[in-house]
Amino acid sequence: MIIKGEEQVTEAVLEAMQGTPDARLREVASALVRHLHAFAAEVRLTEEEWELGVDALIRSGKACTDSHNEMILLSDVLGLSTLVCLMNNGAGGPTETAAALLGPFWRMHSLHVANGGSILRSETPGPTLFMQGQVVDTEGKPISGAEVDIWQASPVGMYENQDPGQADMNLRGKFTTDEDGRFSLRSVKPAGYPVPTDGPVGDLLKAQKRHPYRPAHIHALLFKQGFKTLVTQVFVDEDEHLETDVVFGVTEALVGDFQQHESEPPEPDAGTPWYSLEYRFVMTPGEAKLPVPPIK
Amino acid sequence: MIIKGEEQVTEAVLEAMQGTPDARLREVASALVRHLHAFAAEVRLTEEEWELGVDALIRSGKACTDSHNEMILLSDVLGLSTLVCLMNNGAGGPTETAAALLGPFWRMHSLHVANGGSILRSETPGPTLFMQGQVVDTEGKPISGAEVDIWQASPVGMYENQDPGQADMNLRGKFTTDEDGRFSLRSVKPAGYPVPTDGPVGDLLKAQKRHPYRPAHIHALLFKQGFKTLVTQVFVDEDEHLETDVVFGVTEALVGDFQQHESEPPEPDAGTPWYSLEYRFVMTPGEAKLPVPPIK
Repeated sequence: MIIKGEEQVTEAVLEAMQGTPDARLREVASALVRHLHAFAAEVRLTEEEWELGVDALIRSGKACTDSHNEMILLSDVLGLSTLVCLMNNGAGGPTETAAALLGPFWRMHSLHVANGGSILRSETPGPTLFMQGQVVDTEGKPISGAEVDIWQASPVGMYENQDPGQADMNLRGKFTTDEDGRFSLRSVKPAGYPVPTDGPVGDLLKAQKRHPYRPAHIHALLFKQGFKTLVTQVFVDEDEHLETDVVFGVTEALVGDFQQHESEPPEPDAGTPWYSLEYRFVMTPGEAKLPVPPIK
Repeated sequence: MIIKGEEQVTEAVLEAMQGTPDARLREVASALVRHLHAFAAEVRLTEEEWELGVDALIRSGKACTDSHNEMILLSDVLGLSTLVCLMNNGAGGPTETAAALLGPFWRMHSLHVANGGSILRSETPGPTLFMQGQVVDTEGKPISGAEVDIWQASPVGMYENQDPGQADMNLRGKFTTDEDGRFSLRSVKPAGYPVPTDGPVGDLLKAQKRHPYRPAHIHALLFKQGFKTLVTQVFVDEDEHLETDVVFGVTEALVGDFQQHESEPPEPDAGTPWYSLEYRFVMTPGEAKLPVPPIK
């Protein structure tokens, strides 16, 4: 159609998309156009602002590498990633395990560790953490033989592949649940860390006077045939940024009960204070597939 | 805040953005978040669809070069560019000149041509076009001394910098309006052409069964101190894609009255049939500045 004025643009675009054979693409693209146009119209977006936005998206795309995804980070700090995650993983009450973001630090092929073993592969100063996990189904029945991939930052907030001071695969390990659905490990208490701020997302956070920190957390990826692969994070409850996670990843269900102990540790060389964490993961029926991070 | 479920995500993000010192950024970013989340919630966006979208944006960013801007093209085919353009340039009735997209083919430093002169710099087969333009202000008063930068595709739909068969700066020329606000030139009738379809935008158009064509048009960029620089396009009224411009650039005000003539042409070597076009450009008071295309 020939457009008479701004109030006809949305109609023209929706009309052009009506011939889309795939019903779902038609639905999603039409909704995107309606909401995108409604946004621009509501704020009376200026040409300069449109240029800034286009430029920020271009720079975000160009900043993506094998080890950093600025576009996902943008989605994260706008809360979209968490919204999509929660919509698709039924984050019910606090007893149900919610999924969380995979994040850019997961690595395939981390090494298998026996239950109770340590995931430290080089000296890593910081308070010892003994974690005990249980994996159950939605009825609370233990899931044995589930593969639990654990990874975390160090007590100074660095993953091993960011930190030349840590050995390869330090603070990563893959466990298999026993017949009661349980696994256990020894580690150190993780610390929070800032997301990268040297790109367009960092510029946005600065302009919004938002701090760039994620509260401390332990990542887990749980895999078992017959269940939807669960990507999740367990947060340290005493972290100062627990309520202001820059990527909005903290839900009630994901706050772990990290208990500090001054007593004799379970292993003599663990030192005091030491920490314990008990956490229950709930897997839902579905397709078991390993994530392939969409990083270019 | 610690999020209880999906219905709290938007609130959490808006709360995090409340400390933005710049009121306009606070307004625009908050509206973006509300509309983006409303889109995702309305269609119950899946994780796979979110990944596809993120990946398309990354690939669009990476496809941007000095001579091609895939991200602007994406904005174009979603109708956002035209909407922003019309909102900011008061596209009233058909007598008022509306602004249009700059597009990727404008070049700085095209050569000055005297009124009545030709913008052909190499042999360019196709019907001759005599264009007469007038530049007026919003009261209809002629604007003399305005600089009018004209560029267009050839009768086979190629700009000179896409086509080794054309001389450098062929079909480009800069004119100065006389005391009646008039300028005139000789050219050839342009043809429409497809936008590039080898990137993510091409994939989208194919999936939506949309053709990639723009109707034939002549670009104009008008510059005069005291007036808002006007970027516009005049479309060939008989073009088969006039009603289905892939980037939604055709507004009523921009359809030119291209008249075909079988009579003796004004210049003996022009051949028959030849075309004439009379078009009136309206400039509004504002800041005169040259565009710098936001291309990386």
